[in-house]
Amino acid sequence: MTDPLNRRIVLASRPRGRPSAADFRLEAIPVPQPAPGQVLLRTLWLSLDPYMRGRMSDAKSYVDPIAVGDVMGGGTVSVVTASQHPGYAEGDIVLCRSGWQEYALSDGTDLRRLDPEAAPVSTALGVLGMPGMTAYVGLLSIGEPKPGETVVVAAAAGPVGSLVGQIAGIKGCRTVGIAGGPEKCRYLLDELGFDAAVDHRDPAMAERLAAACPDGIDVYFENVGGAVWDAVLPLLNAFARVPVCGLVAHYNDTGLPPGPDRSPLLMRAILNRRLMLRGFIVGDFAAQADAFRRDVGGWLKEGRIRYREDVVDGIENAPDALIGLLEGRNFGKLLVRVAAA
Amino acid sequence: MTDPLNRRIVLASRPRGRPSAADFRLEAIPVPQPAPGQVLLRTLWLSLDPYMRGRMSDAKSYVDPIAVGDVMGGGTVSVVTASQHPGYAEGDIVLCRSGWQEYALSDGTDLRRLDPEAAPVSTALGVLGMPGMTAYVGLLSIGEPKPGETVVVAAAAGPVGSLVGQIAGIKGCRTVGIAGGPEKCRYLLDELGFDAAVDHRDPAMAERLAAACPDGIDVYFENVGGAVWDAVLPLLNAFARVPVCGLVAHYNDTGLPPGPDRSPLLMRAILNRRLMLRGFIVGDFAAQADAFRRDVGGWLKEGRIRYREDVVDGIENAPDALIGLLEGRNFGKLLVRVAAA
Repeated sequence: MTDPLNRRIVLASRPRGRPSAADFRLEAIPVPQPAPGQVLLRTLWLSLDPYMRGRMSDAKSYVDPIAVGDVMGGGTVSVVTASQHPGYAEGDIVLCRSGWQEYALSDGTDLRRLDPEAAPVSTALGVLGMPGMTAYVGLLSIGEPKPGETVVVAAAAGPVGSLVGQIAGIKGCRTVGIAGGPEKCRYLLDELGFDAAVDHRDPAMAERLAAACPDGIDVYFENVGGAVWDAVLPLLNAFARVPVCGLVAHYNDTGLPPGPDRSPLLMRAILNRRLMLRGFIVGDFAAQADAFRRDVGGWLKEGRIRYREDVVDGIENAPDALIGLLEGRNFGKLLVRVAAA
Repeated sequence: MTDPLNRRIVLASRPRGRPSAADFRLEAIPVPQPAPGQVLLRTLWLSLDPYMRGRMSDAKSYVDPIAVGDVMGGGTVSVVTASQHPGYAEGDIVLCRSGWQEYALSDGTDLRRLDPEAAPVSTALGVLGMPGMTAYVGLLSIGEPKPGETVVVAAAAGPVGSLVGQIAGIKGCRTVGIAGGPEKCRYLLDELGFDAAVDHRDPAMAERLAAACPDGIDVYFENVGGAVWDAVLPLLNAFARVPVCGLVAHYNDTGLPPGPDRSPLLMRAILNRRLMLRGFIVGDFAAQADAFRRDVGGWLKEGRIRYREDVVDGIENAPDALIGLLEGRNFGKLLVRVAAA
């Protein structure tokens, strides 16, 4: 019997534009052994998220770049397979940031224990994790939706957008989701209870969005940018709020679009309609973690919130899955099942 | 003796780009007589403000357009010359909105009585009026400056910018003013106590602004747009706040600048640096009028705030003065002395 290997994905090169398989490299190294005070973690679930594209670049961003040759970072749910740490025992399931690899060591400081009885542990990477909390704090603390207002969100079938729409619905808003393709749009209406859904691949997307928002838009939760933002901006009401959470349509951009320069138009819209745009990342709102888990955990138990996972098997398939995520190929929270529990 | 005439300026045509004298027309009509319940007002001071350019256009804006042929609107300080209103007596000085004319009628609903003993009555159009309150609410309620932060304001020798800088100084911030020409810059430093001043006509403006802001910019009070905004954006710190109050550099624009389209850059900056941009007009904050008058009135009495007026004599000179205002020709709060008190 040979020693087990730790298969991992490292950043092979910085992509220019759309990442390709050649930007990643699969390596296999010996599984490390925990020193006193450490645990050995085996990855069960790896979360794939749009922000990872930013970490592959060295441009200034809200996340630090990953060095070429380093393991791709990412949130994981892992099981403790060996422990030299007094606080953790073999078999404990934890939320951690092991990244794109099958095994990792930890000194325990970055771990949060999960209760598999409370909810499926994969939800700690989705509806009850970073994406869920992103939706919660961005919508409620920045968007501040009021009953009767119209809330629009793009990437609405994804883990952030789907929760934005459902929370807005719970708060009494008219909810309009934008997603790619008729299947996702049906899901928004039939499963998630959105009031309207618009397919961003429809050539008449802007007109359909306008028709879905007869009273204009009061909160636009910005996940994507690009053509969707162009369609949203003219519909924003006076005093509309725009939490800016992501711009996935631009993450593979290699330059600026051709002219004219429309940035003065945007500034004039901000002035004339007294818009509020505010960028955020979930870590800025760590103080709300308890409120988030209480509220969203409660809605989930009451059946008022649904979620969907899109599962890919095997760490070796993570690169292609991330490439697809940036093109909207996933349907629901994208997870890599690295090992069975 | 002939009956007195009411000389007034009407909008003759909608300007395309920079307004010209031909867009205004001086008329003289009989002075009206007050009916029961009315007062006749003689204009003493007319305020000229950048927002007036917006009202000359029929483009959608935060102000309604003036109809061609109508009297140009505007805030005034006037004296009651005849009263059929029980609440007002001949000689009362009031704040009103008579617009660009020597006489006007009022039923009293739009009047606020001024106390000439408390402060020069012209200040009701400047430091203690709409421009002053614009600075106060925009800086404090949207900018939320904290001691030690860097606050930058353009058009800093004007009535809004000069107060933004002085209030920020009172709040313990580093204050950087941007103004046109060495004389205005000296005024910012020597008279208003700004920590640094940058001449926007200096070809090295962007470098000088960066040098004046060694710790970046935490609050940028946006009055102008254009090249100043381009210089400010790269210097904004994470979590910077941008109250968007005006865009005077763009008010005479007839189209968009050539490409590339930089609006995605702006959205990415908002996301990556978690910026907050928010447009506002002073009327949105009417509830703060008492706090404004108490605070700024107090600072003025204590000598902690200074102001400067730029006075033009005669209603017939208002058009040229407004054209100059849009080019930064004024130095201080621009007022037309329509009649002596």
